[in-house]
Amino acid sequence: MRNQIDLLATVTVLGVLEQAYFALQVIYARRKYKISPPNTTGHPEFERIFRAQANCSEYFPIFISLLWVAGIFFHQGMAAACGLLYLYTRFKYFQGYTVATQGRLGPLYASARLLWLLLGLAVAGLLAHFLLPTPLRGWALA
Amino acid sequence: MRNQIDLLATVTVLGVLEQAYFALQVIYARRKYKISPPNTTGHPEFERIFRAQANCSEYFPIFISLLWVAGIFFHQGMAAACGLLYLYTRFKYFQGYTVATQGRLGPLYASARLLWLLLGLAVAGLLAHFLLPTPLRGWALA
Amino acid sequence: MRNQIDLLATVTVLGVLEQAYFALQVIYARRKYKISPPNTTGHPEFERIFRAQANCSEYFPIFISLLWVAGIFFHQGMAAACGLLYLYTRFKYFQGYTVATQGRLGPLYASARLLWLLLGLAVAGLLAHFLLPTPLRGWALA
Repeated sequence: MRNQIDLLATVTVLGVLEQAYFALQVIYARRKYKISPPNTTGHPEFERIFRAQANCSEYFPIFISLLWVAGIFFHQGMAAACGLLYLYTRFKYFQGYTVATQGRLGPLYASARLLWLLLGLAVAGLLAHFLLPTPLRGWALA
Repeated sequence: MRNQIDLLATVTVLGVLEQAYFALQVIYARRKYKISPPNTTGHPEFERIFRAQANCSEYFPIFISLLWVAGIFFHQGMAAACGLLYLYTRFKYFQGYTVATQGRLGPLYASARLLWLLLGLAVAGLLAHFLLPTPLRGWALA
Repeated sequence: MRNQIDLLATVTVLGVLEQAYFALQVIYARRKYKISPPNTTGHPEFERIFRAQANCSEYFPIFISLLWVAGIFFHQGMAAACGLLYLYTRFKYFQGYTVATQGRLGPLYASARLLWLLLGLAVAGLLAHFLLPTPLRGWALA
């Protein structure tokens, strides 16, 4: 079983590390601008970093869900590769949003395209699973 | 392995699609009321849509966790059916909250009842797994 | 398959129950201080409880991801034990934050250390999986 999910698990752990990095940036921004919890406003840069991290956190479970369904029902390597690209676009999104609100848009659209791609792989894998006769399913399962 | 989780994976993908729909509604409301990120306030309807989406996002990982534990340890088809109903109540919740704060309550209670049901199935499945002798477990495993 | 994930599933269900408890505390605080949705401000104690619950919700998917990867690739029992301790530190965090902002810090650091430990177990398990020859992997897989 582990061989069928090892790449998915690796990308999941990398995704967690990325979230940890984002969370640390919020903590540093709180210190820099002296904005103590539970406050979430007080300086534009802090607010951008806070929203960037909140947005990435919100999409994390959606990303993990699609990664695993696409990886198990379509192709593990392809899902893991899309996952790595997604994490990269999220990093650029966070960096861009930190500098300016406009800076988040390009990477955000790129990350959305990768989620739609993972969704497409997941749907294709599930359709192959439900509709194709068992011997033909091999194409999608590597 | 895939046969034991194919319905759970399908409901997961449908749940992701629903979250995508909610996220799009927030974007449309931002445009309609000209509320640019990182702002999250400015017009009552926008704030209701924003909170509706935030609430659904917050419950998404909890829903997915219960769906999978109930589906693997109790009965996949029953868990998937509860999952579909949950997604439907969340859709009604989002629609209701968009119109008025009061409109969210009925569907919210219905969605909570379905989560408690999934939790009950998960606990029952785990208890059967840990307590029943192996041959008797079949009743819960379809 | 169920035997390899039964403890992870149990800790997951306990984690969901804890999140349900936190969500109920927010509802009670809304009633106590008469702060109706979609408002999220209005009284310091409500704001602390609201942020405590939001923070726990945000970390829930990260915790679940690490719990499962560590449990599947390193050692289920050890991951489940760390998971139980994590849920306990989150409970203390919530209680501490409810009373005073400073009260959240000790348990928050303890919960962060447990997440880093789970991350270490996950990475160790994945490295053993990818690098060790198959017969030697047994040490990590119980």
